[in-house]
Amino acid sequence: MSEITLDHKSMVNAPVGVFDSGLGGLTVAREIMRLLPAEDIVYFGDTARVPYGSKSKDTILYFSRQIVRFLKTKNVKAIVVACNTASALALPTLREEIDIPIIGVVEPGAHAAAKATKTGHVGVIGTQATVSSGIYAKVIGEIDETISVIGKACPLFVPMVEEGLADHPMMMQMIDYYLSSIKESNVDALVLGCTHYPLLRGRIHEYLGDAITLVNPAYETAMGLKGLLGKHGLLRPEKSAGETQKNQAAANLYVSDLPERFKEFANSILPVDIERVKTVNIEQF
Amino acid sequence: MSEITLDHKSMVNAPVGVFDSGLGGLTVAREIMRLLPAEDIVYFGDTARVPYGSKSKDTILYFSRQIVRFLKTKNVKAIVVACNTASALALPTLREEIDIPIIGVVEPGAHAAAKATKTGHVGVIGTQATVSSGIYAKVIGEIDETISVIGKACPLFVPMVEEGLADHPMMMQMIDYYLSSIKESNVDALVLGCTHYPLLRGRIHEYLGDAITLVNPAYETAMGLKGLLGKHGLLRPEKSAGETQKNQAAANLYVSDLPERFKEFANSILPVDIERVKTVNIEQF
Repeated sequence: MSEITLDHKSMVNAPVGVFDSGLGGLTVAREIMRLLPAEDIVYFGDTARVPYGSKSKDTILYFSRQIVRFLKTKNVKAIVVACNTASALALPTLREEIDIPIIGVVEPGAHAAAKATKTGHVGVIGTQATVSSGIYAKVIGEIDETISVIGKACPLFVPMVEEGLADHPMMMQMIDYYLSSIKESNVDALVLGCTHYPLLRGRIHEYLGDAITLVNPAYETAMGLKGLLGKHGLLRPEKSAGETQKNQAAANLYVSDLPERFKEFANSILPVDIERVKTVNIEQF
Repeated sequence: MSEITLDHKSMVNAPVGVFDSGLGGLTVAREIMRLLPAEDIVYFGDTARVPYGSKSKDTILYFSRQIVRFLKTKNVKAIVVACNTASALALPTLREEIDIPIIGVVEPGAHAAAKATKTGHVGVIGTQATVSSGIYAKVIGEIDETISVIGKACPLFVPMVEEGLADHPMMMQMIDYYLSSIKESNVDALVLGCTHYPLLRGRIHEYLGDAITLVNPAYETAMGLKGLLGKHGLLRPEKSAGETQKNQAAANLYVSDLPERFKEFANSILPVDIERVKTVNIEQF
């Protein structure tokens, strides 16, 4: 019995694995850190093979399996697929293959959108792969079959954000180029179905106005993770106020390329100081 | 002696290997097909890991070595690195490691630019990795140390071309965003230092005007290959007029992802019909 108890304790104290094709998933890691500050995180960003959104299902599944194998070497107790494309195309298969809890960003985002719409018309923006998969329409349809879903791929949003053009006048033109049909529709809830898009939230809101609620699956996913860990008895208790704050939860970041650039971005977005980002040859997993 | 002759004959008839991070290198393959119609080509596009231009030297070298190993299984007699980023960052090392002739796009492009400039000021546009490498300035400086080189990375040109926006008004704004400093400089020759950029040639010319000569390394590279094969006695003789045209040189295309999409693009750009594009798991090489 004591062994089982020990095992369970070490499981509770184990980190949560989080992965994305690159740095966008840090917006999800940030929400997890805020909502579950006691949880250690192991993050992997596949910066050598980014982006995923213009690639095939087979390739995205192949890459995702390698990352899951890597995260399991870090003894994670659960995995968050913090990438819409991998959630849309790889998660259903990963879930069948894995023996620990796993959650993606699509289901939490779909639930939030279904809850937010009053007109019964939801929009979803994301990568070509996410939108072509039709996964949001499928999941939202399972929640409420009367809700209609319009998808729109916006492949240039990510490179423009990464190029630092989020506040450039061309960004508003690009938003108009991609979102004019959404603006003219009767959609009243729009899922930001790519982890980079929360970084454009202000601009998109400025363009679409108050009539359309923007749904950010990052926050919903952190909530979903909390529920999932609770269900499995894996939530790590928060420290009591008397304990030192020095031993706050750890974040270990790994990438497949360009760790320095990643560290800089992580420090601009995460609520903890990241001193080092390590490089992993992900092809070996 | 007869064995040596046979070996040499089979070497002469062997294909030329050509690779790129994706589909841009087809603009180089096209020039090779036009200039050397008797040569068989084996092309590899790394569509599962595209783009290279925002990644590190180590990663680009690692990927390029895998591709060279793959091409050698196809018994190529020579290799063309039809990618500016890989030419800039991997070619010097590959050249030391390989036992067959290998040529990139940078040296032919640099020679053409040095020849084209009258003011002694050359501009180079390309990916972040190519421009940061300073390779064009280095090679042009070796040809003529009095020539000055200005580099400008244009990371959004490739995704905009791939999104079909080459003729959209936003493209001209993006060209103005990246190239206004070149336009105002005393540069009179501009290297299109990324294999996608010839697809924007008309637009860039429209913006910069006749005073700046646009240098396309694709054609210069095909010329360089012809010289290199000739030097090694590896040029395949063209068929005489009496022979059937049915047995024209073959092009075998391989990619690491999305062969159907690639086939469509290849057929829009190459002077031969491509019936099939095969998928290769490049990580296994």
